[in-house]
Amino acid sequence: MTSKIDRFLSEQTLKTPYLVVDKDIVRRNYRAFRDRLPLAEIFYAVKANPAPEILNLLHEEGASFDAASLPEIEMCLATGATPDRIAYGNVIKKSADIAQAYAHGVRLYAFDSQVELAKLAAEAPKSKVFCRISVEGAGADWPLSRKFGCDLDMAVDLMATAQDCGLNPHGISFHVGSQQRNLEQWDLAIGRAALVFSDLRGRGIELKMLNIGGGVPVKYRGNGVPDVAQATDSIMSALTRHFGNDLPAIATEPGRIICADAGVLETEVVLISQKSYDDATRWVYLDVGKFSGLAETMDEAIRYPISTDYDGSPEGPVVLAGPTCDGADILYENSDYKLPLELKTGDRVRLLNTGAYTTTYASVGFNGIAPLKSYYI
Amino acid sequence: MTSKIDRFLSEQTLKTPYLVVDKDIVRRNYRAFRDRLPLAEIFYAVKANPAPEILNLLHEEGASFDAASLPEIEMCLATGATPDRIAYGNVIKKSADIAQAYAHGVRLYAFDSQVELAKLAAEAPKSKVFCRISVEGAGADWPLSRKFGCDLDMAVDLMATAQDCGLNPHGISFHVGSQQRNLEQWDLAIGRAALVFSDLRGRGIELKMLNIGGGVPVKYRGNGVPDVAQATDSIMSALTRHFGNDLPAIATEPGRIICADAGVLETEVVLISQKSYDDATRWVYLDVGKFSGLAETMDEAIRYPISTDYDGSPEGPVVLAGPTCDGADILYENSDYKLPLELKTGDRVRLLNTGAYTTTYASVGFNGIAPLKSYYI
Repeated sequence: MTSKIDRFLSEQTLKTPYLVVDKDIVRRNYRAFRDRLPLAEIFYAVKANPAPEILNLLHEEGASFDAASLPEIEMCLATGATPDRIAYGNVIKKSADIAQAYAHGVRLYAFDSQVELAKLAAEAPKSKVFCRISVEGAGADWPLSRKFGCDLDMAVDLMATAQDCGLNPHGISFHVGSQQRNLEQWDLAIGRAALVFSDLRGRGIELKMLNIGGGVPVKYRGNGVPDVAQATDSIMSALTRHFGNDLPAIATEPGRIICADAGVLETEVVLISQKSYDDATRWVYLDVGKFSGLAETMDEAIRYPISTDYDGSPEGPVVLAGPTCDGADILYENSDYKLPLELKTGDRVRLLNTGAYTTTYASVGFNGIAPLKSYYI
Repeated sequence: MTSKIDRFLSEQTLKTPYLVVDKDIVRRNYRAFRDRLPLAEIFYAVKANPAPEILNLLHEEGASFDAASLPEIEMCLATGATPDRIAYGNVIKKSADIAQAYAHGVRLYAFDSQVELAKLAAEAPKSKVFCRISVEGAGADWPLSRKFGCDLDMAVDLMATAQDCGLNPHGISFHVGSQQRNLEQWDLAIGRAALVFSDLRGRGIELKMLNIGGGVPVKYRGNGVPDVAQATDSIMSALTRHFGNDLPAIATEPGRIICADAGVLETEVVLISQKSYDDATRWVYLDVGKFSGLAETMDEAIRYPISTDYDGSPEGPVVLAGPTCDGADILYENSDYKLPLELKTGDRVRLLNTGAYTTTYASVGFNGIAPLKSYYI
């Protein structure tokens, strides 16, 4: 909670639910991250929060952009960002979308497979390409699974092929998984990337760039989350350990760490109930749920801190759920959430650190419920 | 696949992904269900697919409507349905929404808690109310969890309270869980409801209605799914077993069974790739995923049948995933999906039985991807 958000919430009588984002915090986060990784080109992960207000602010700050799709590229261009500051970072792209991105002037593309490379050779000739390698990602709260990246052997061959088919074999990327708490994962990943650099050097190809992805964790609820300084220190040590003095250009794709703690989601308690006389568990139903912005509560992966007007007063255990008729729309049943005993139906409840990965996840209208509104102040 | 959908798909050159729904199948499903349960008033579960084309068609057929929210009530009214044919079936409602529904003329409300009852007494005086009891729901592919319903003792007390506070204690409801394969669950639930009826009779309150919810399963992929005739036969037997000749009015809330098999989702293969030389698994990435309509693939709960232009030719195992940069956007990794070996990037793939619980689950724009388009023919 910032004083600006506090004032906004107290002065407004808007219908809940809605997200308020303090742009000053976004700016502060961006600058802090940039200052901690001065060597890196920061490609903001647009998918974390693509609000024009945030993209414009980051454009003013000099950020580059990591776009997941053609529409995201076009949102970045709309800020005035030049195409040389935009990477098309999704390894799954339609040929037509690559062609359109190329027509817009984008010349930096991710891939992790033979077929994608062939599309890039056809639709984005001479562009810089970077191959995403797979990493384990253990320790991430929102892991990236096996969906992305290829093995090192394959990456080496693909980069050699990239050169053969008229593309510019620019670099290697990885992603340790979103909300990664285990800082050693960057060391492992950077070590793997360094192997690809040296293998390719042996084949006469000098890579220029290492993209270390995102994954620096935000402090949600609970402990054991390293702070940005610890994370970036680990990353810098690992870079030095594996690349020595011969550092490539470094790119990074922060999203969550830029926006999450700038946002507060204001909601209302629609109902508090018990299921039986034998079970005192309070079920607290909010007017926002898994299908209206809180998709990252899937498997209770991301656990938002919660604030009410009764903070500090006696608390008791609750199950938190959303407002739809869907049984899967439970936010937290197994994460030991407690809320004040005084809390009652109609009260406001604030979900903190909700500035990233909320608004765009909201459904178009499941159960007739409108998408999450948001305000950037 | 119906011949109408086949023709539509072959004649159109629309950009994928999109859903096509054959309204004739919706009508056929509605009539078949009505004919199998002639005693029941059918409240279509609007949330399954609230497209105006479907609501209008079901209105013409004489259906009533189960609405999950005020906007869904207003969609039903827009078809010309009179408010006496609309139930506000969500047990989690804001007071202001109840007041507005009441102003619209709605006089039938679900609840399962003391607090909700108090809201109804204040905002919807003299309305018919029905209390949702909890049932186990074992055997459902998309279970309703503990989120809804209260214990029998509490239900009895709440219905007595309803009478005391000027509401009309109309009936009892339950829901055995969506896509329920175990037909005995209806017997268990109807037996529990009958206990509430007789307890309340002992307290001088004669309930009028039993709402047996939804849950009749659709045949997706795999076997062991009873058909509609088997399900409705089981339901009718259970009603007779527990209520004898003294049947209350029966209400039911089908959604999935009305719409699912009327829809085909046309998608395109964006990429087929392997992750390493050692692992021959083909990753097939479609242009639709968990965040653009296929939310029910969560935990691989709902497994859609898939059709391609190569059906019948040799197949091999695949992992199916969506187009976003999100590691959770995997559709099927553990459900032994196989697709033709000839399938290649750019080919069309059709997900069958996708007419329910798809369009409205789509996100407003995660990764910059537009919501799922749909056509009703």
